[in-house]
Amino acid sequence: MQQAQVRIGMIGYKFMGKAHSNAYRQVPFFYGGSAVPVLQAISGRDAEEAGAAARQLGWAEVETDWRRLIERDDIDVVDIATPNHMHAEMAIAALAAGKHVLCEKPLAMSLQEAKRMQEAAARSGKVNMLMHNYRFAPAVQFAKKLIEEGKLGRIRHIRAVYLNQSMIDPNRPFRWRLSKQMAGFGALGDIGSHIIDLARFLVGEFQEVSGLMETFVKQRPEADRSGQPDYSRMIPVDVDDAAAFLAKFECGAFGVFEATRYAGGNKNGNRFEINGEKGSVRWDFERMNELQVYFTDEDEAFRGFRTVNCTEAAHPYASAFWPPGHVLGYEHTFINLIHELVEGVARGTRPRPDFADGVNNQAVMEAVAQSAELGRRVRIAELMGPSSGEHAMFSHGKE
Amino acid sequence: MQQAQVRIGMIGYKFMGKAHSNAYRQVPFFYGGSAVPVLQAISGRDAEEAGAAARQLGWAEVETDWRRLIERDDIDVVDIATPNHMHAEMAIAALAAGKHVLCEKPLAMSLQEAKRMQEAAARSGKVNMLMHNYRFAPAVQFAKKLIEEGKLGRIRHIRAVYLNQSMIDPNRPFRWRLSKQMAGFGALGDIGSHIIDLARFLVGEFQEVSGLMETFVKQRPEADRSGQPDYSRMIPVDVDDAAAFLAKFECGAFGVFEATRYAGGNKNGNRFEINGEKGSVRWDFERMNELQVYFTDEDEAFRGFRTVNCTEAAHPYASAFWPPGHVLGYEHTFINLIHELVEGVARGTRPRPDFADGVNNQAVMEAVAQSAELGRRVRIAELMGPSSGEHAMFSHGKE
Amino acid sequence: MQQAQVRIGMIGYKFMGKAHSNAYRQVPFFYGGSAVPVLQAISGRDAEEAGAAARQLGWAEVETDWRRLIERDDIDVVDIATPNHMHAEMAIAALAAGKHVLCEKPLAMSLQEAKRMQEAAARSGKVNMLMHNYRFAPAVQFAKKLIEEGKLGRIRHIRAVYLNQSMIDPNRPFRWRLSKQMAGFGALGDIGSHIIDLARFLVGEFQEVSGLMETFVKQRPEADRSGQPDYSRMIPVDVDDAAAFLAKFECGAFGVFEATRYAGGNKNGNRFEINGEKGSVRWDFERMNELQVYFTDEDEAFRGFRTVNCTEAAHPYASAFWPPGHVLGYEHTFINLIHELVEGVARGTRPRPDFADGVNNQAVMEAVAQSAELGRRVRIAELMGPSSGEHAMFSHGKE
Amino acid sequence: MQQAQVRIGMIGYKFMGKAHSNAYRQVPFFYGGSAVPVLQAISGRDAEEAGAAARQLGWAEVETDWRRLIERDDIDVVDIATPNHMHAEMAIAALAAGKHVLCEKPLAMSLQEAKRMQEAAARSGKVNMLMHNYRFAPAVQFAKKLIEEGKLGRIRHIRAVYLNQSMIDPNRPFRWRLSKQMAGFGALGDIGSHIIDLARFLVGEFQEVSGLMETFVKQRPEADRSGQPDYSRMIPVDVDDAAAFLAKFECGAFGVFEATRYAGGNKNGNRFEINGEKGSVRWDFERMNELQVYFTDEDEAFRGFRTVNCTEAAHPYASAFWPPGHVLGYEHTFINLIHELVEGVARGTRPRPDFADGVNNQAVMEAVAQSAELGRRVRIAELMGPSSGEHAMFSHGKE
Repeated sequence: MQQAQVRIGMIGYKFMGKAHSNAYRQVPFFYGGSAVPVLQAISGRDAEEAGAAARQLGWAEVETDWRRLIERDDIDVVDIATPNHMHAEMAIAALAAGKHVLCEKPLAMSLQEAKRMQEAAARSGKVNMLMHNYRFAPAVQFAKKLIEEGKLGRIRHIRAVYLNQSMIDPNRPFRWRLSKQMAGFGALGDIGSHIIDLARFLVGEFQEVSGLMETFVKQRPEADRSGQPDYSRMIPVDVDDAAAFLAKFECGAFGVFEATRYAGGNKNGNRFEINGEKGSVRWDFERMNELQVYFTDEDEAFRGFRTVNCTEAAHPYASAFWPPGHVLGYEHTFINLIHELVEGVARGTRPRPDFADGVNNQAVMEAVAQSAELGRRVRIAELMGPSSGEHAMFSHGKE
Repeated sequence: MQQAQVRIGMIGYKFMGKAHSNAYRQVPFFYGGSAVPVLQAISGRDAEEAGAAARQLGWAEVETDWRRLIERDDIDVVDIATPNHMHAEMAIAALAAGKHVLCEKPLAMSLQEAKRMQEAAARSGKVNMLMHNYRFAPAVQFAKKLIEEGKLGRIRHIRAVYLNQSMIDPNRPFRWRLSKQMAGFGALGDIGSHIIDLARFLVGEFQEVSGLMETFVKQRPEADRSGQPDYSRMIPVDVDDAAAFLAKFECGAFGVFEATRYAGGNKNGNRFEINGEKGSVRWDFERMNELQVYFTDEDEAFRGFRTVNCTEAAHPYASAFWPPGHVLGYEHTFINLIHELVEGVARGTRPRPDFADGVNNQAVMEAVAQSAELGRRVRIAELMGPSSGEHAMFSHGKE
Repeated sequence: MQQAQVRIGMIGYKFMGKAHSNAYRQVPFFYGGSAVPVLQAISGRDAEEAGAAARQLGWAEVETDWRRLIERDDIDVVDIATPNHMHAEMAIAALAAGKHVLCEKPLAMSLQEAKRMQEAAARSGKVNMLMHNYRFAPAVQFAKKLIEEGKLGRIRHIRAVYLNQSMIDPNRPFRWRLSKQMAGFGALGDIGSHIIDLARFLVGEFQEVSGLMETFVKQRPEADRSGQPDYSRMIPVDVDDAAAFLAKFECGAFGVFEATRYAGGNKNGNRFEINGEKGSVRWDFERMNELQVYFTDEDEAFRGFRTVNCTEAAHPYASAFWPPGHVLGYEHTFINLIHELVEGVARGTRPRPDFADGVNNQAVMEAVAQSAELGRRVRIAELMGPSSGEHAMFSHGKE
Repeated sequence: MQQAQVRIGMIGYKFMGKAHSNAYRQVPFFYGGSAVPVLQAISGRDAEEAGAAARQLGWAEVETDWRRLIERDDIDVVDIATPNHMHAEMAIAALAAGKHVLCEKPLAMSLQEAKRMQEAAARSGKVNMLMHNYRFAPAVQFAKKLIEEGKLGRIRHIRAVYLNQSMIDPNRPFRWRLSKQMAGFGALGDIGSHIIDLARFLVGEFQEVSGLMETFVKQRPEADRSGQPDYSRMIPVDVDDAAAFLAKFECGAFGVFEATRYAGGNKNGNRFEINGEKGSVRWDFERMNELQVYFTDEDEAFRGFRTVNCTEAAHPYASAFWPPGHVLGYEHTFINLIHELVEGVARGTRPRPDFADGVNNQAVMEAVAQSAELGRRVRIAELMGPSSGEHAMFSHGKE
């Protein structure tokens, strides 16, 4: 088989840049699919730093101006791995330049901005994806499969948390993720957006939410050059440290969600439980290879959650890697998503999550924030109009 | 030591009656404290059935009219183990008759009713307790101790669920717990009240809540004589199948709560996690002997939740029973609470949880229900006035 | 139903005496079977201490000479809860006096002694039981049921450990369990005997063993009156601190066993895993309500160990207690065994484990010790003759 | 920094070839160390199949004769990823040709063969490594660090298992791993060798063993071309299906080990627990990011195994990858070992495990097999002479 080349240009090269770069390099090794990503160029304002990153991460060239990157003829896909406030301008420009776009999450700073991005994507007809990597853990994909096949029956409940402890120390210096101007939301946008995306992926569209948000530490010292706190320069924190919300879904399910950076002992506690009339599943990213599965209709004597190690050929994406029981890690979620991206470019399909998903995710975040501010329940349709985005809700569990 | 006799009369003899009876019998065996409960009499309308229960459970006599029971001179404590709608009348009458009272939870059908009960209790000066047994698991008491000693620091978060699967089958017949007239609330009152009580015990008083409630199965068949569903007689379900709520506490903590009877795979999933600035704890009733404990200030290399098997002399109540590692079960939570009850009667102290706790618990439930109905946040003070009951909030983690 | 009285006399009243006493008191409450145990008398040399114990534990009378106890006409069952070196003399005398006998484990100080006890029991025709309580956890009984019904198929493997940390501190004073003269064996007899009994119960008779034993701390200080170590009086430890052995079973299964008092972090780590051709089970006493169950022939996508909370009516003994999900503790294993004892006495049946089981257990221990000493594999038949005791091996998993 | 090129030639390209190839590709990305592996050539007899593998796995060239591969001037390291019976000839030839050598485990078919390989390695002065990848999980390395720093004190116990279910189905066709001529040992060599290596790494050298081995299924059908069983051609299984052994270590520790391919429900159950006087650790490959850690000297109230997610900078190798809580998988153990290999080549150091480790591992296997056959304990010195190989035992926990 002749493999197409899919030439990538990436903006940004920090933590996410590393995770994306690794995935581009690993896709042909594990998938050997119809397309091979080529790590053409990255852009970064500091030529020296960007050059070092390019060498380390395996990129051929460097641009110091992202606008030059997106204008290059030898680039098919623009990958936006920058802070949130730059996503819209970059994505819209890249789409206008005829590029496919992969954007880090959350898609935008606001619902309005997200809609502009989605409209640009729709106009362009190009592949547009959003980096909600956790969808692509084999155990999560297997949960999706169980739900789509009706194995859990009509969904009654989802409860999902994303807990970390990144800001528990009040002396930790200010960083861009605590700034409304650069991040949009705090915990809600950074980690809450992942569980919103997982909920929509697994259970369908949200109908209404009641939200609560809190900023526990109202100001933090700036970091000095060595990264230490400089208490003479305190910066107000104007985003949420924690956000929680209750939800009803279009399918009738009942949801409870929480995202916080103050949950000591939780390093990357992205977890959910879904209860249907016929069965339940539980997942915890920290043990990401395992899906807990329960079936209601089994003999009472034998019923219990099973710990399914999702490394069998029967588990989505798993067979690209290692034999059963040889577990995967964080980076493999990126490899799977980017496999879908390059296949989508090569084959002209429309992989998801895409910008329309980003719009719907953003609408939920915005509804949560409005609800928290107003102290009342908010319907998604109040923000979106009656149809919540491009994607129809999937049906799970015919009745 | 001369042990005082504390003579008990109990109304009701089903599941809770059995749990209470066992506890009265076991208190002297394990505690040998200052008082010995005497299982004097139970009341039940059906003389034959009540007589059989009395023999099985170890009670000396039977009354067929609960009013006769509470009038007896040879009874010191009236134990009310009946459906919720009878609590108020029985408790107020018993207090009026000069008895100490132990009442099953939830205390009342409404906040107003709860307040009347509390006022009667306050007037009487008698011991009044509410059967929130889960407070008395050694692991929960140990969590309380850690919080009171400031080991967790300022509390940021509590998330608590009480999940079971009792009504997941839509063909299961109607029962009294599904009737507003007999139960007051559904999942909220039955199991939600336990996590409200645990939250107040561990974190302090609620300040405001946002609630969501749902009735998934709107009607159920009546049970025929053999307990089978009779589909010709459908009865509407007018209480909640599931309830969830977000909360702010007076101490500034942030709470997320959920109670449901539709969570397949969860037999008795009473669980919480509390995160403080200095540490966290997790508890799961299904592994009730274990408290997961995390300390923030330890060396990064060694940090992690510890599974503490709370059967050491250092763990409250544990040394009454067996050596370390010899685990306890459900019934021991009752034994511990009833130990406090009889000691309270014998020594003239005021053990908790009491009817004032019941008022505060009821206020939270009522606020949740109002919030769910109105679609807006509800402050406890709207229902209670600015001070939420008799008990001042305890302080946890001086700053 | 008219309930027969079964009158008990117990020798010893410490930890085991408390556990037995509680069980006698609880049997009628939970089982209400055909017989009611009567706590007639205990014996202890110190009249005052024994009297206090009798009051606390609920026994009517006290004898200061155990020989007087076993001669009493008003006693049906003699319960021997004394250190190991007294078992044989007491049991044989009690049987000779026409009593049924319950004996603490391990049965005897040697295989020869065990055989004498078993012969006395056989001659007497009386009920004779051995207090291997762990057989009577509902989860263990459920494992037995699965095996007997062939659900696990032909058994290939058992691996079992009994780990505690009771002697890990080398400064802990000497106690009788460290003396060959009083205990016979160390960890092997005290905790190893339990996993031998469980293995025989679940997998059948041992055929041969290879053993290894170790005494890590060769001498310990005597305890002074306050229980503190007196280093001027060091006493040699002449039993094993740890024992391990490999085994082949008559059914062809392969076994690996370990018992030690030096396994830090293990409070009461009595655990096993059994693998059959069709399925596997795992049990851990510290989470004694749970049986992990795995079935080989299920769809690869769904396979995994299930955590079965063994509190359903389908689980042996569970329905005597509480509703599903309301967990049991250590003491319930004693209640279940003693229920079998009193029913056996009342109905004239022969409940197990009995003295013949004790002989077979002792033969395994003795074979392990011989093997450890000789450095070679030892067949049980070398010690026992070709048939290993009274009980034929049960068959599990027809093929 | 100028990075040296380390040119690799690999023999074999199946499962292990894939795991090795991935690691060579990933080392520069994650480590960017002093050396860059160059995937120069692989050899395989079938030119077409080997060519396809080379393209997929990223190797520049193909040789169809391994002898040609090791003669190439442009190769620095020969990586032997072939069945066991070819290791010795290939390794000795490669060393003779002046190459560094990495060999898959187990090193050899016999102790004698292993010694010849080690002697060739010693003579050559070249880097020689053995692919015991599990040593290189960060959690295992962290356990090693704790032991070396004396945090666990004097080691009393190790118990380790390697359980899988690969041969549980008696209809699964014969494969090379079941042939003594190609594999040497069965479960003992394939998976048992890993836990022997881990035990030596963590606890030190073995002193004596008692072994038991079993072949449950004595013959299996040959696979036809489609991989299905052909029952007309049955092949005898002449290696062990399961092996277990008891051990004493030179440091006085007590060990219990088991390896089997018949443990249903265990996909890759490589697990150990180590108990020292001051602390304990537990590890399970299926949750490979976690080390359970227990410290004996902590307050009784707080003691319990902690679940340490070994993804912090404080955990060996972890910081090469992702931020805390972003878990690693199977393949990262290979990346870490191969990082040591190429650094060793570039810097002229002698990374381990090496062929001398392979000799010691082989001696233990051979002693186990002899013990199982003879039915008696076997000292390693009987096979090796008094010094068990090149490596002195490390000391852990000064006394």
